[in-house]
Amino acid sequence: MEIIEQKSRGSQLLKGYLMATLFYEPSTRTRLSFESAMKRLGGEVLTTENAREFSSAAKGETLEDTIRTVEGYSDIIVMRHFESGAARRAAMTANIPVINAGDGPGQHPTQALLDVYTIEREIGRLDGIKVGLVGDLANGRTVRSLAYLLAKYNDVKIYFVSPEVVKMKDDIKEYLTSKGVEWEESANLKEVASKCDVVYQTRIQRERFGERIDLYDEARGKYIIDRNILSAMQKHAVVMHPLPRLDEITVEVDGDPRAAYFRQAKNGLFIRMALLKLLLLGW
Amino acid sequence: MEIIEQKSRGSQLLKGYLMATLFYEPSTRTRLSFESAMKRLGGEVLTTENAREFSSAAKGETLEDTIRTVEGYSDIIVMRHFESGAARRAAMTANIPVINAGDGPGQHPTQALLDVYTIEREIGRLDGIKVGLVGDLANGRTVRSLAYLLAKYNDVKIYFVSPEVVKMKDDIKEYLTSKGVEWEESANLKEVASKCDVVYQTRIQRERFGERIDLYDEARGKYIIDRNILSAMQKHAVVMHPLPRLDEITVEVDGDPRAAYFRQAKNGLFIRMALLKLLLLGW
Amino acid sequence: MEIIEQKSRGSQLLKGYLMATLFYEPSTRTRLSFESAMKRLGGEVLTTENAREFSSAAKGETLEDTIRTVEGYSDIIVMRHFESGAARRAAMTANIPVINAGDGPGQHPTQALLDVYTIEREIGRLDGIKVGLVGDLANGRTVRSLAYLLAKYNDVKIYFVSPEVVKMKDDIKEYLTSKGVEWEESANLKEVASKCDVVYQTRIQRERFGERIDLYDEARGKYIIDRNILSAMQKHAVVMHPLPRLDEITVEVDGDPRAAYFRQAKNGLFIRMALLKLLLLGW
Repeated sequence: MEIIEQKSRGSQLLKGYLMATLFYEPSTRTRLSFESAMKRLGGEVLTTENAREFSSAAKGETLEDTIRTVEGYSDIIVMRHFESGAARRAAMTANIPVINAGDGPGQHPTQALLDVYTIEREIGRLDGIKVGLVGDLANGRTVRSLAYLLAKYNDVKIYFVSPEVVKMKDDIKEYLTSKGVEWEESANLKEVASKCDVVYQTRIQRERFGERIDLYDEARGKYIIDRNILSAMQKHAVVMHPLPRLDEITVEVDGDPRAAYFRQAKNGLFIRMALLKLLLLGW
Repeated sequence: MEIIEQKSRGSQLLKGYLMATLFYEPSTRTRLSFESAMKRLGGEVLTTENAREFSSAAKGETLEDTIRTVEGYSDIIVMRHFESGAARRAAMTANIPVINAGDGPGQHPTQALLDVYTIEREIGRLDGIKVGLVGDLANGRTVRSLAYLLAKYNDVKIYFVSPEVVKMKDDIKEYLTSKGVEWEESANLKEVASKCDVVYQTRIQRERFGERIDLYDEARGKYIIDRNILSAMQKHAVVMHPLPRLDEITVEVDGDPRAAYFRQAKNGLFIRMALLKLLLLGW
Repeated sequence: MEIIEQKSRGSQLLKGYLMATLFYEPSTRTRLSFESAMKRLGGEVLTTENAREFSSAAKGETLEDTIRTVEGYSDIIVMRHFESGAARRAAMTANIPVINAGDGPGQHPTQALLDVYTIEREIGRLDGIKVGLVGDLANGRTVRSLAYLLAKYNDVKIYFVSPEVVKMKDDIKEYLTSKGVEWEESANLKEVASKCDVVYQTRIQRERFGERIDLYDEARGKYIIDRNILSAMQKHAVVMHPLPRLDEITVEVDGDPRAAYFRQAKNGLFIRMALLKLLLLGW
């Protein structure tokens, strides 16, 4: 009976492999997602929940030295860092694969991958897609990465809907234009929602506003996805969000089948499983 | 030889299952006990040692949203929270089992189960048992839960022995009376000890006394279990304590076979193993 | 195919065994090294990253009580503590093996073992070896332990090279003399380097200097291993360092085959694997 149990539950593809999570800033959601992915494939995990207090880092050790040590203990490193470029430095030092789980204002590539995978899975295609990016488009790493990835597909149309203070920056706009991606800015969320296949909402981050709580409060309340917005959306369209969300999507939306954000979070697990298998076992 | 090893060491009943520990307040003892239980059965664990600093929670995410995410990564959630009712909210949200590992001043049901199991195992029965509850009966979650559970058995007699400031509250007394459980209050620990099958000592918690250190010191020194109290106890009787203990049981008691508190702690492991198996595999 | 995978990756020697890491002060490097060792052998781990905040310890529980509880959950305990002698107390309490992973200013025996193993592996012998101990010899636990262990071999010669304020203390010097080990102090690192088989550099620890940053800066810059020192060393000689390093070995040294410090760190994994197997399965 136990043998049946063993065969029926879970993959053992990565049995005997060891993943080290080096998180220099906390991100419980991302860390758990990677650790779950590794364990769902039968692999094992070495955890550092707060590598910034990594005793060695606190004593002044370079990132390169830390990586050279940790690569001796594991087969793959998943790293979250507060500095842009840190993951690249780690990857150039290590003789084992390094996955960037977010490096400060830089990249968060597995989030972008899971977003694209979610669109593909929910809508059935990426070519010809209409996507509304909503909320903090200036600081949101995810929307910037997503816009960048979408430019690799054909006939994509992007709508930017954001408070004035956190508008999408010119670098991405210029990139999209150079790739022939149509985009426009709009102040009318409902109209955009009615046209789009995907409405991608993001959180306005308080910490970006310093002491200007008044600006924060104004920005935060401006574009909320609620039943009213939902009513304008097409039947096949979906609402996405990288999570955590505060009140930029009201809870009344959660029960609607078009609310895709928790399925999106779960897709993060699948994308990371695929990535771990790919990097450790190859195609 | 390795195959023999594998067969001889440990169960693999829960192989392929993943438990997430979500601890919003630290409780290393309880966390380790659950994680050991899961691993002793061949299961795997995702740990958050301090979920209060869960990045998402810190950003204002609701408990419900956190649960919806974590349930995507695991098969069962063990949650400790600082708010009464949090475990129930989590269980109502999740599509996977949620075990309450203590929710603030609310419940700590696995502790109550292990206490009852320990009495059964040490004394051989629960019906007709005489139990002395000693120490902080006002704030101690464990004694309140234990009194509640004992009321489900027949002919139980309970003695309350506590400093005036931390007496057992009326709700439990009324509940016991309504269930026909005999109880009395006493200021004579030695006399109570001589009559009981179980003397259940608890720690007086300093944090309950605010700035009144004088009251704390007075309460704390009042009912100590030492060799003198032990000498009054019957041969078959036992001393229990939910741990950690300070000096409310003196170390000279530890060597006596009637000191059951470390066996009690170990029973927590067995109870949690049973619970995990039950919830994941059924009866 | 999965079966082949399982057979080809990793040992399962300690499958079904559970190691608890009790770290009362952070030491991510040492913790990861032990946890990797256990998992590389198929064993499982219960982690406490910061046992000082062990809820029970914070409430005033004795180390002995904590150990009695944790030994109920695991098969072996790895303990790091801030008090000298804590590991011995734990070992005397526990009925399962306790490994000392450093106890304050006391011992760090697995570091000493991996140092001796590294010398044996790099140089091919320990008898007749010439070792230069460099840097903070007053406070460095590793150099003190290493000097002590080297005294067990024949014809060893030790050179001490350190700033005046952190000279090797008399107890070790007297011990070496009593064992017939030749030693001398020198202020000329280059000359020492040219004679030695092993140059063992250590970090000058800022926290030892209190507010005398001037003394720290002076001590810190005094004996640096760089290309110049390396050029004086023999071809077969090696540079060792317990890590983390700051700038007491310049990064230009890293590429030289005689830079043994990252191999040394990796040896820590092997030594700990051997130790875990020995303590759990015997010879």
